[in-house]
Amino acid sequence: MVYTRPLARLIEQLQRLPGVGPKTAQRLALHILKRSEDEVQALAQALIEAKKQVGLCQECFHLSAEPICEICRNQNRDRTTICVVADSRDVIALEKTREYKGKYHVLGGVISPMDGIGPEQLNVSPLLRRVDREKTKEVILAITPSIEGETTTLYIGGLLKPLTKVTRIAFGLPVGGELEYADEVTLARALEGRREI
Amino acid sequence: MVYTRPLARLIEQLQRLPGVGPKTAQRLALHILKRSEDEVQALAQALIEAKKQVGLCQECFHLSAEPICEICRNQNRDRTTICVVADSRDVIALEKTREYKGKYHVLGGVISPMDGIGPEQLNVSPLLRRVDREKTKEVILAITPSIEGETTTLYIGGLLKPLTKVTRIAFGLPVGGELEYADEVTLARALEGRREI
Repeated sequence: MVYTRPLARLIEQLQRLPGVGPKTAQRLALHILKRSEDEVQALAQALIEAKKQVGLCQECFHLSAEPICEICRNQNRDRTTICVVADSRDVIALEKTREYKGKYHVLGGVISPMDGIGPEQLNVSPLLRRVDREKTKEVILAITPSIEGETTTLYIGGLLKPLTKVTRIAFGLPVGGELEYADEVTLARALEGRREI
Repeated sequence: MVYTRPLARLIEQLQRLPGVGPKTAQRLALHILKRSEDEVQALAQALIEAKKQVGLCQECFHLSAEPICEICRNQNRDRTTICVVADSRDVIALEKTREYKGKYHVLGGVISPMDGIGPEQLNVSPLLRRVDREKTKEVILAITPSIEGETTTLYIGGLLKPLTKVTRIAFGLPVGGELEYADEVTLARALEGRREI
């Protein structure tokens, strides 16, 4: 045994984190041993508290420490627009742009029959009820254009169409992207989505 | 605020780990929220226990959960050879080769006057007492050949010379290394350390 037992256990636990291999786990563990007991306690505490306190918002299913998340409670945000995303990390990414002032709805994944995920496994019914109840004026679908994502967008779009205006985010050349290196599908989408200037 | 408070706190704590930036911290934190409470508890527990239980071996100053580490207690290892290294991670690296069957001595750093680290801040006196007490036959110095490392090697070598045989590990071309890409210092060392075949 190369490591003393508690160290081996820590390395083993750290290796379960995504993107952390044996070398990184060892480096992190040895670094942790050099920190003060208070600092290590603070990290352990943060782990346990985040897991215990953070659940899903009852309205939009975004990560939240309260029953209703901060975004849903915020009276300054536009209640009439809902942006539908697959995952909470998409909400975080969109929030970082500071461009969007409406509400969100997190599906909790995309339709993927291969993985046994149908509309029933996602927060689709709550979305329909919400749009109906809140007289939503526009639903923006912001789902990654993978095969599963497209299926999800088309499916939800079809359900929402009779209830409200439905839009989807634009796909095209990323800002800073080189036209010659863009793949054909992206370029085709960019052409298709062209606008007058 | 983009993150709910307990999540923000966890991300902030994770960012203090070496090599973990804001993006990685967010990815790790969101992954942790998806794990079961038991799994998160196990990670937190491993952190606290490793920090509480792992100290330094009283004999060789390697990381150990016992007062005397496993290597020092192991009766099958050669008591007459001590390999001196700067850090516990060097012991781990050498142990992984499975080539060395002697004991170790961890200095806890290298002499670096710029950082206020002199021989008194390192475990040098315990090494001298140990070599004297245990009638050590050979001390192998295995310290990285940086400027500070060389200083440390020369200093400790000088102190040990009157007491026992002192050797140092070989420096030269790494196995798998390309001769044409090796730096001049390494090549010079490789030439200097040439052996008859």
